[in-house]
Amino acid sequence: MLGILYKSLSIKTRNPLSKMYRTHTCGELRTTDFDKEITLSGWVQTIRKFGSITFVDLRDRYGLTQLLFSESLNEKLDANPLGREFVLQVKGKVNARSNKNANIPTGDIEILVSEFSILNRSALPPFTIQDDTDGGDDIRMKYRFLDLRRNAVKKNIELRYAVNRAARNYLHQHNFIDIETPFLIKSTPEGARDFVVPSRMNPGQFYALPQSPQTFKQLLMVSGYDRYYQIVKCFRDEDLRADRQPEFTQIDCEMAFVEQEDILQMFEGMVKYIFKEVKDLDYNLPVQRMTWEDAMWNYGNDKPDIRFDMKLTNLKFPNTIFQSRKKASEVSPAGFPNAIGIEGGTGFPVFDNAETVLAIAVPGCSDYSRKQTDELIDWVKRPQIGMGGLAFIKYNVDNTLKSSFDKFFTAEKLKSLAEKCHANPGDLILILAGKEERTRKAISDLRLYMADRLGMRNPEEFKLLWVTDFPLFEYDNESNRWVARHHPFTSPKPDHIEVMINNDPSIADADNYLQHPYANIKANAYDMVLNGNEVGGGSIRIYQRDLQEKMFAALGMSREESQHKFGFLLGAFEYGAPPHGGIAYGFDRLCAIIGGSETIRDFIAFPKNNSGRDVMMDAPSTIDDKQFDELQIKLDLK
Amino acid sequence: MLGILYKSLSIKTRNPLSKMYRTHTCGELRTTDFDKEITLSGWVQTIRKFGSITFVDLRDRYGLTQLLFSESLNEKLDANPLGREFVLQVKGKVNARSNKNANIPTGDIEILVSEFSILNRSALPPFTIQDDTDGGDDIRMKYRFLDLRRNAVKKNIELRYAVNRAARNYLHQHNFIDIETPFLIKSTPEGARDFVVPSRMNPGQFYALPQSPQTFKQLLMVSGYDRYYQIVKCFRDEDLRADRQPEFTQIDCEMAFVEQEDILQMFEGMVKYIFKEVKDLDYNLPVQRMTWEDAMWNYGNDKPDIRFDMKLTNLKFPNTIFQSRKKASEVSPAGFPNAIGIEGGTGFPVFDNAETVLAIAVPGCSDYSRKQTDELIDWVKRPQIGMGGLAFIKYNVDNTLKSSFDKFFTAEKLKSLAEKCHANPGDLILILAGKEERTRKAISDLRLYMADRLGMRNPEEFKLLWVTDFPLFEYDNESNRWVARHHPFTSPKPDHIEVMINNDPSIADADNYLQHPYANIKANAYDMVLNGNEVGGGSIRIYQRDLQEKMFAALGMSREESQHKFGFLLGAFEYGAPPHGGIAYGFDRLCAIIGGSETIRDFIAFPKNNSGRDVMMDAPSTIDDKQFDELQIKLDLK
Repeated sequence: MLGILYKSLSIKTRNPLSKMYRTHTCGELRTTDFDKEITLSGWVQTIRKFGSITFVDLRDRYGLTQLLFSESLNEKLDANPLGREFVLQVKGKVNARSNKNANIPTGDIEILVSEFSILNRSALPPFTIQDDTDGGDDIRMKYRFLDLRRNAVKKNIELRYAVNRAARNYLHQHNFIDIETPFLIKSTPEGARDFVVPSRMNPGQFYALPQSPQTFKQLLMVSGYDRYYQIVKCFRDEDLRADRQPEFTQIDCEMAFVEQEDILQMFEGMVKYIFKEVKDLDYNLPVQRMTWEDAMWNYGNDKPDIRFDMKLTNLKFPNTIFQSRKKASEVSPAGFPNAIGIEGGTGFPVFDNAETVLAIAVPGCSDYSRKQTDELIDWVKRPQIGMGGLAFIKYNVDNTLKSSFDKFFTAEKLKSLAEKCHANPGDLILILAGKEERTRKAISDLRLYMADRLGMRNPEEFKLLWVTDFPLFEYDNESNRWVARHHPFTSPKPDHIEVMINNDPSIADADNYLQHPYANIKANAYDMVLNGNEVGGGSIRIYQRDLQEKMFAALGMSREESQHKFGFLLGAFEYGAPPHGGIAYGFDRLCAIIGGSETIRDFIAFPKNNSGRDVMMDAPSTIDDKQFDELQIKLDLK
Repeated sequence: MLGILYKSLSIKTRNPLSKMYRTHTCGELRTTDFDKEITLSGWVQTIRKFGSITFVDLRDRYGLTQLLFSESLNEKLDANPLGREFVLQVKGKVNARSNKNANIPTGDIEILVSEFSILNRSALPPFTIQDDTDGGDDIRMKYRFLDLRRNAVKKNIELRYAVNRAARNYLHQHNFIDIETPFLIKSTPEGARDFVVPSRMNPGQFYALPQSPQTFKQLLMVSGYDRYYQIVKCFRDEDLRADRQPEFTQIDCEMAFVEQEDILQMFEGMVKYIFKEVKDLDYNLPVQRMTWEDAMWNYGNDKPDIRFDMKLTNLKFPNTIFQSRKKASEVSPAGFPNAIGIEGGTGFPVFDNAETVLAIAVPGCSDYSRKQTDELIDWVKRPQIGMGGLAFIKYNVDNTLKSSFDKFFTAEKLKSLAEKCHANPGDLILILAGKEERTRKAISDLRLYMADRLGMRNPEEFKLLWVTDFPLFEYDNESNRWVARHHPFTSPKPDHIEVMINNDPSIADADNYLQHPYANIKANAYDMVLNGNEVGGGSIRIYQRDLQEKMFAALGMSREESQHKFGFLLGAFEYGAPPHGGIAYGFDRLCAIIGGSETIRDFIAFPKNNSGRDVMMDAPSTIDDKQFDELQIKLDLK
């Protein structure tokens, strides 16, 4: 569909266009313009000859306008034949159209051409410039400048700008100030790898490109700029999983004199404002909130899609992960620490021997055929999921039950199990059993997969969620130490600061790291989840030098190392650092989801492929000897 | 002066502030708020004890508020002594102030403190946080986070945001769309050096950081996004002259279906809009326009400061530089190609032997003392100027004339010379003679120096100027070839395309390169000059593949090289490239000049020093062996 424009983009050019090239755009002429003498410039979309007259659809950023070349122009047309994607300028008069086209805003008029001039010719494009193009992914990336002409891509780029504009307007209205932070900074690898830049003027030394402006925005809080934002490129040299880019954009924000509640309110307001401006959507629902433990317990992951229900039933789970669940499990009929909760045990070794048994009740699928259940079994056995198998119970509409493990279970036990899973007649109960971490991830993936199959994930429906109370630390078994789950600047929950200060971070018993007091320290951190995607994440920061030093030490950093890497920040905390916190949105992903897609590449004008290459310009590439020489580096290829 | 806020920044926070930390800012309470119970948070600016009561000025981004601690708090104050830059939270009641302070907006009120809490302490800052700080440049750069607290710096950062916001609003209103272009691109060094980034995933290959988004914005025109903009970081690895930064920000714009006139009108509109929004200045003057030749002729450089007149008199100049002046000089009494225009010659060897003789008439300085004229002579002899001497004529108010070369000139000849210089009684005529290039630059510098001495360059007066019709090529004597004066994508003036196509670019006679037809080809290029500074520059671009290839060839690039570096652009020109052109503003400089300064560093939150170092975070720095290893590079230090 041509002519999509978002509320914050205007349809009319508000400035007289060049007298030389055009008086109007191809999207703006209407019946009220009848008889006007106008000039248009644009691209030839289609050419249709009917006897002695020729119709051309002329396209520009704003729309399509039909041109009518009458017989008198045939001689000139023969001498200057038009082709698809030629750049054409025409002068003519706005006419009523006999054959109206209700699909486009200019469909009531056409231009009776009096003069035309070919501004530039075009070779035959390697694929058609249409929504349903015949071009594959590779060729469209190589000719990205042509792919960008397609309306399907253009509306994504326009949507991105509309989101950008709406975010800026909201933040401006709330007194945020855009302050640019540097791109050539210091390499302080923590977590992801830095991209580095050799310094010619300081031989042997390197800048790093920022993974985020984190430390700078905190310094700005110390400087008193109490509401900062930036829509800014960030860089991470990671092995690219599908749909990751080495350079990506963040809406990066920080506030001083705030606690978590202030930030949640401010930024759910921002996203609601964006919904309104970009999609004309009134999001009047309160934004749901959920602790990390609840998310893991009920959905198996920390960014649940809550557009649909289908919560997990925790039939069996280990003692250690959900420390605060231990008590809950004693009173909840669904959760049993060490047994599946069937009187006398199940006798089914798959359940009895598993660390974890988790189930979902999929509505309306009790009539799945053998072929369909086999499909599901194959699906969970794929390497990406990695389960050994899938158990299921069909809770038929006639109230009978049929399971894949009937020989181990009496009808009564099956009924009891189905009830524990909050299943209703018509549901298909899917059960996974195995090691906690893998099984929980698998049931979470299976839940999304089933929802996709059942069309329960409407991209035009938006559900926001805050996930809070993340663990402050994660265990890194390679180095048997703690790593920061969010980043080293995140504050523990106020109640947990004592636990952090009063315990030794070193881990004596690696197998039982979850018993270490640090495992249960929660962070003053929060993620915004939109339709099952983490679109933003942030935290209240540490602003006391001693606590920050304790954090660096907890992460295994020596005093020298923390001073070398972050001495400037520790120093700044000595000169009146205010309480502060912030958030960063993944701008590419936010745009993609608002645009109804999960592919961020579609919302980036010039994306890179999965090897980090720009195939259009062929980058990266070799550099000259002179460049090596000046930078005083050389290759050291393995 | 505290409390400066620009029109596009709001004074009130438009959102309820955190209930926990503050109900108001330190800039907003007025007499209308009497008796309100409020909470403030901020930094301790000053502490004054008067007997049993204590006054504190509390500062935040929005202003200063006076706090009154009465006797009842003395005990608590003694237990928790305050210090400068401590972060303080207070609760209290808004009171009338007996001793009003008319200098600040909150000067009519004070807070009678009922409770206070120290949120964070501060060490003694290494310099005072005041406009007239006692800190030198180096210490303020190392503690930039404290320097940024000073109001003198804060108002620059706020002005920068106001300019940013105004530019975006104007461009949005005119249908420009912000499209992000990549930062990890291909190295195509032309002119300045690229910063490069080793690619770990593509060993032996490098990305480059963009010197500008030039080729991408042109591709976007080919893609049909007819009005593009971005406020974007760019990178140049140059030896840093004073006041250059390795990373800098551009307002980068491009338009399709335009000619030069469209662009000049659009962007003088933008700068006028910025003046209005940021300075509340109505710039109603028409923006003056001047060809490059006129600028060189009348001012000696291509970015004249036209806030004052003091034009050059071209007493003598070589044949070759001002090709289109040759005829003008025959009719103008002031310009004589090969003689100073004095009947019978001057007899003064300094004039007679010089390639160029140039003069300015400085108003009101005919009474300069010997000491003062000696100062000027010393000034032109400094290495930065490099002249051998300075001749002068005092045109006294009594109509008598006195020169530094009286013995060569009769009174009559002197009078005739003074008249040629458009001098009036009271003027001091300053004359430089020597080689054309150096002398013209020197007289231009002298003109600015005299204007500075005379206070003729008011930073609060703004004069815009377009300089047009630049030479397309410059001669590079190192490689005896042409280089692009603007960049290789700039189109020649339409009339000059034939000259370019029909002549061989190679230079047979290096000494007389100015005789080559290429020397007189003019570009479809334009600079915006503000108060003697080039703040923006752009051009109409080449959009035809064959002309672009001819340009690359003219610059000495082989077909293979141009294909390797710019094949994607040449390819794009085959698929219907529209006529297009654009402009880029040096955002840092634009902000500095609007802020009444010429030092861009003052308008950058975290600038680098002249060695490209960030002294606060100590970057660039060494990197780990692991990083070298992963990138497959090593040092090769000379």
